[in-house]
This record gives sequence, structure tokens and C-alpha cells, in this order.
Amino acid sequence: MDIGKFEILKKDQNSGARLGRLQTAHGEIKTPVFMPVGTRGSVKGMTPRQVEETGAQIILANTYHMYLRPGVDKVEALGDLHKLMAWNKPILTDSGGYQVFSLSTLNRIGEDGVEFASHIDGRKIYLDAKIATEVQNRLGADIIMCFDECTPFPCPQDRLKKAVDRSIRWAKICKESHSREDQLLFAIVQGGIDLELRKYCAQEMIKLDLPGYAIGGLSVGEGHDNMIRTVDYVAPLLPENKPRYLMGVGFPADIIASVRAGVDMFDCVLPTRNGRNGFAFTDDGPLRLRNASHTEDTSPIEQGCDCYCCKNFSRGAIRHFFIVSEMLGPTLVSIHNVRFFQRLMDKIHKNIENGTFVDWADEKLAKYAENGLLKN
Amino acid sequence: MDIGKFEILKKDQNSGARLGRLQTAHGEIKTPVFMPVGTRGSVKGMTPRQVEETGAQIILANTYHMYLRPGVDKVEALGDLHKLMAWNKPILTDSGGYQVFSLSTLNRIGEDGVEFASHIDGRKIYLDAKIATEVQNRLGADIIMCFDECTPFPCPQDRLKKAVDRSIRWAKICKESHSREDQLLFAIVQGGIDLELRKYCAQEMIKLDLPGYAIGGLSVGEGHDNMIRTVDYVAPLLPENKPRYLMGVGFPADIIASVRAGVDMFDCVLPTRNGRNGFAFTDDGPLRLRNASHTEDTSPIEQGCDCYCCKNFSRGAIRHFFIVSEMLGPTLVSIHNVRFFQRLMDKIHKNIENGTFVDWADEKLAKYAENGLLKN
Repeated sequence: MDIGKFEILKKDQNSGARLGRLQTAHGEIKTPVFMPVGTRGSVKGMTPRQVEETGAQIILANTYHMYLRPGVDKVEALGDLHKLMAWNKPILTDSGGYQVFSLSTLNRIGEDGVEFASHIDGRKIYLDAKIATEVQNRLGADIIMCFDECTPFPCPQDRLKKAVDRSIRWAKICKESHSREDQLLFAIVQGGIDLELRKYCAQEMIKLDLPGYAIGGLSVGEGHDNMIRTVDYVAPLLPENKPRYLMGVGFPADIIASVRAGVDMFDCVLPTRNGRNGFAFTDDGPLRLRNASHTEDTSPIEQGCDCYCCKNFSRGAIRHFFIVSEMLGPTLVSIHNVRFFQRLMDKIHKNIENGTFVDWADEKLAKYAENGLLKN
Repeated sequence: MDIGKFEILKKDQNSGARLGRLQTAHGEIKTPVFMPVGTRGSVKGMTPRQVEETGAQIILANTYHMYLRPGVDKVEALGDLHKLMAWNKPILTDSGGYQVFSLSTLNRIGEDGVEFASHIDGRKIYLDAKIATEVQNRLGADIIMCFDECTPFPCPQDRLKKAVDRSIRWAKICKESHSREDQLLFAIVQGGIDLELRKYCAQEMIKLDLPGYAIGGLSVGEGHDNMIRTVDYVAPLLPENKPRYLMGVGFPADIIASVRAGVDMFDCVLPTRNGRNGFAFTDDGPLRLRNASHTEDTSPIEQGCDCYCCKNFSRGAIRHFFIVSEMLGPTLVSIHNVRFFQRLMDKIHKNIENGTFVDWADEKLAKYAENGLLKN
């Protein structure tokens, strides 16, 4: 097995879209790929088997959360992250950068790292590029991410520039600290929606010659158009023969437009977060299962969907489970939503394969713009 | 198919225990049987497929809860209870009597029925034998129960007597009101731990010649010894050629002792209620998964258990999911616990089959008495 090998199986003639496959220590990932998020070692509301049945190839887990609880010693005592999660396919861990800057109370951002107060108990914790890499080495995911500074939107220019410089310096430390050949370390390009900064950051990161490149710092409030403008610009700057990963994205329309730009990997909490709240994704627009209009509705969430939820439960039954607060409601809609995203990726694959991707994408993007709420 | 046919396949030579099978409109039930409880149409924390995989043959649902929400009209609009629950095997509904007397604020107990305030919104609701039967006819379960008055423990003698008289009168009305041949209406014997009253109630109920007989009003605080003393006395009074059902019971020791007395059917919320709280049943005694002692424990909840939880997750991982409040924790321990109860029933079957039931039961009862908390 040639870990890290990324083959492009087909390039779309009319866009940046491509079909590929990436070899990891826990098997092959077909791209473009959507990764459900298992923040604390569990894709919320679902068992790993239910996740696997949606067709998910890889799960993202959060280093920040696992570092705080149960802690990396405890994960090691239980084997590794795969064992703890009962997931024997690929796992990607982010570096914790995003959570440090979004979830915790920052005490001090230094040139080397960040001191912050845990969002759980206020305990003071220090994280830097070296530690974040060592922690990820010990957690044992197949793909690990460089520690970076993720900026909010909007962000003053000087802070944006500082964050880019820090992220570049930290990425070098991550590469030096990285100690496991069976894990792929990806770099993260920052720079907000400033295209010049993005270009600079991409160029510097590319010098590190890492096995994959991510676009970070998007889907933080800049909106679909700003995001896609940035992705359209940045994706082609990244090495063509390496996987490109758009972090934390997103809505179906975001994914389609980003695949068109040449992005290969995505992750997002949307399918499960929305699922828990009774919000179901369908190709005809969102459904809110708590609505009284579904009370006597015998149809499934989405006609033709092959998920466990749609094959067995009516909208009326699912609404009932939400109204009476049964866990089954959140579980069922999460299953449907994760399967919806996997079916979306299947359609993307098929249309790239058939050479019909751009027409299909145009049609879907127009439809989703019209039926609302399927874009950021 | 001969709905209601109950065959005794084997009688234990040294106790009242027997192996049987009961034919229902949704298939055969092998007895002794334990029914997981799906109060509001869902066995809490589990999908119906997960319930089926434990070996569960039949689920109990609560008429009282389904009557309040979503309401019987809504269940009918969605098909029936089987369709709503996505469960195509047998279902038993209780009559609502127990919940009316335990959950709601009673406004008036009349000779005909009960007026009570819904535990959800205080709405005034009236339920009597005729309505409870009609509602159960419309919900469509395979086994339905007579509307009865369930007394607390302890209970003044005059109230106990009144409750027995009402339950007998109401059972006659239930039989007259019952309108579906594909549903089996079971009578419920009341009388607290007063053996004379129990005998009187049993004799009157037997006159109705119904297809099954339940012992109600136990597991309400009287303790294991009082319960078993009552069951030992009442079970043999009930028709030998009909299924006997001990309602709301119980702990493994209660079940074993009651099978010995000749009981065929059980239901209890214990496996799922305790599971949600991180309390796991094992043959060696209870495990509390939240305990810090499990933090680095790589062993499964129960060595040798064949459930999805034990085959895939360590105690340490399950503890982590509880500590960080992931739904996966409650789901996993519920799956294990329901499977534990099904494995208990399998062992009961095998030991009756092999003629070793009494010795096995003695050994188990001694063991459970010692390792604690496995009895009521």
C-alpha cells in the first residue's frame, strides 16, 4: 500500500472538477468526498455502523475536543482514535486551531502558540504547532492538519496578515514535528477573502511539499459568493496532483460550486446538527419536521431516498418522535441527512464520470438557489 | 394462521416453568418472552432495527401516551401503530390504566371510568373501559389489555377491594367493546399482595374466558419477596393453557423467579431507562459506566456478549461518550441491556428445554442476590 498516493482518475473538460482516489493507512478514499463530523469521537446521534451505511468513507474528529476530553493519554490507553470510535476506515483530525480561536477564551496568542481557557471548565491550556502535531500523531488519524490561526469574518487586514504569517511559520514546525509516516499531514491556506494574501499563503505552503492542501478560514460568515470567489481563485493555485480540502464546508450548493473549482474534500456538521433539530435536506429544499403540516403525512422525508429513515418512517411518525422528544427523531433525520450528502457526492462522481458535470452543476445550483436554504 | 393459539411445547418437571408459543397477527412469539418498552412508539435510544437485532420478538407501547400524543386519529392517519413505529412484529398495548393512576393528576374515579388531567398540559381527559378498548382497537396492536385500576403499594384494604371490583366490572365492558378478531384481549388480575383478593379477582376474570391473563399491580414498591410470594400464588390460579403475563417486571431475578412460578410474558423499562443513565446489566452484577474506574478500561461491558456494543466498544470509550454527553453512550448501553435481557430469556428457554431450569434458576438467584442490584 502506497500511503499518501493520490491518483486523478478523471478530469472534467469544462471545469476544475476531478475524480480521484487517495490511499490512506485505513484504506482508499474516493474523491470528491464529504466527511461527516464526529467532534468528540461520535457522529452525533448515529452509531458508526449507521454512519458507514450512509456510504461515508472517512470521519473528521476534532483534536481540540479529544485533547480536552478524554485527553490524549486516555485515547492511547484505549488503543487509538479508531478503536475508541469503533471506526476502522479513515479518520481526519483537524489541528485544533479553529476551535481554539472560535470556542475558547483566548488568553494570549504568541508567536509560538496559543494559551486559552478550556470551554468546559476554564482550565488554562497551551497549544502550539509542535504540541498539536504530537497530539495528532498520538491520536492516530490517517490525515492530520497543520496548526493554524483561523480568522473571523470580517477581519482587520493587519490581523489577517499576521494570521497568515503565523500559519506559515507554524506549518513548518508541524512538518518538522510530524513523526508518523502512516499519517498524511496537510497544510492549510489562510487569508480570509483577500486573494493576494491567499496567493502568498498558498505559495509559501506549497514550498513545504506536503501531501495535501486545505483551504481554511471560509464558511465563517462571508457568504456563498465571497466563499466561491475565494475558492475559485485559490483551488487552481494548489498542486494539481494533491488532494484539495475545503474545511468546514458546507451547504450542497457550496460543495457543488467548490468541486467545480477543483476541490476534492469537504467536511461539515450541517447534516447532523440540522438533523438533530428536525431540519431535513432534500433535493426539493429543506423540510422542517416539527411543522404541524407533517402531522398526518405518510410520505418519507424524500421520495426515492434509500436511507433507513426514508425506507421505514413517514414524515408524520418522525414529527411525532420530535414532538414527544424521542431520540429516534434526531437519529432518523441525521441518518437521512448524512445519506443525502453522500448521495450528492455520488451524483457529483457520476456526472464527472459522464462528462456532464457542468450542466448538472448549473441546473442544481439554480434549483438550490430557488428552493432556498441550501446555500450558506 | 390461528390467531390467539397458545401451545405449550414443554413443561418443566420441577417447577411451573414452561416453554410455549403464541400466535399473533404479526407472527409467533416464543415464551417466556421479555418485551422492551416503546412508551411513545419508540424503544428509547434505539432504532427498531437495533431492537430487532437484540432478538426482541414483541414491543410494548403505551395507550395512555399514544392517546395523548399524537392521538389515535393521527396514528390512524399514518396507518397504524406498526406503521408509525416501523415495527412489523407483534406489539402489545397496555390499556392506559397504570399511567392514568401513576402519571396523571386524577380528578375523579367514577364507577365507569376516570377523569384525569394530562401530565403534558393539564388538559382534562376521560378514559373508561369502553374508550380504552376502542382506542386499542384503533391503534392496532396484536395484544391489547383490559382497562383496570392499578393500586399503589401500600394500599388501604377498602381501596384495594374497590379497585378489584372495578377492574372486574371494567373487564366485562372491555370484552363487550372489543371489536377486532385479529387482536388478543388479555384480562388483568389486581389485588395488591392480598392473596384472597387476588384469588377472587382471578376467578372472576377467568369467567370471561379471554385469550390471556396478566398479573398487574406488582413491581410498585412491594419488593422482590412480596412480589414473588404473590406471583407464586396467583400464576397457578390462571388457566394453564393460556399465556400468563406479569406486567412491568422486572429485574432479572424477578423474571427468573416468576418463570419458575409459571409466568410466560414480561415487560419492563429497566434495560433502556438504566441504559440511558449508564447502568449496564451483566451477569456479574451492574456496571456504572460513568465511574472513573472505567476510563482506561479496554474490555467490553460484558465479556462474551454478542451485542453491537460489546463487539465494538470498550468500557473506556463508552464512559467517554457519557462524560461528553454524546447520544451514542445511552444508545450503546441500551442496546447491551436489551440484548442482556434477551440472552437471559434464551438461557431460560435452553434450561427449560434441557430439564435443568430449577438448578440453573437457584444458582442464578443466589448469584444475583450476592452481586446486588439485580433484583427489585
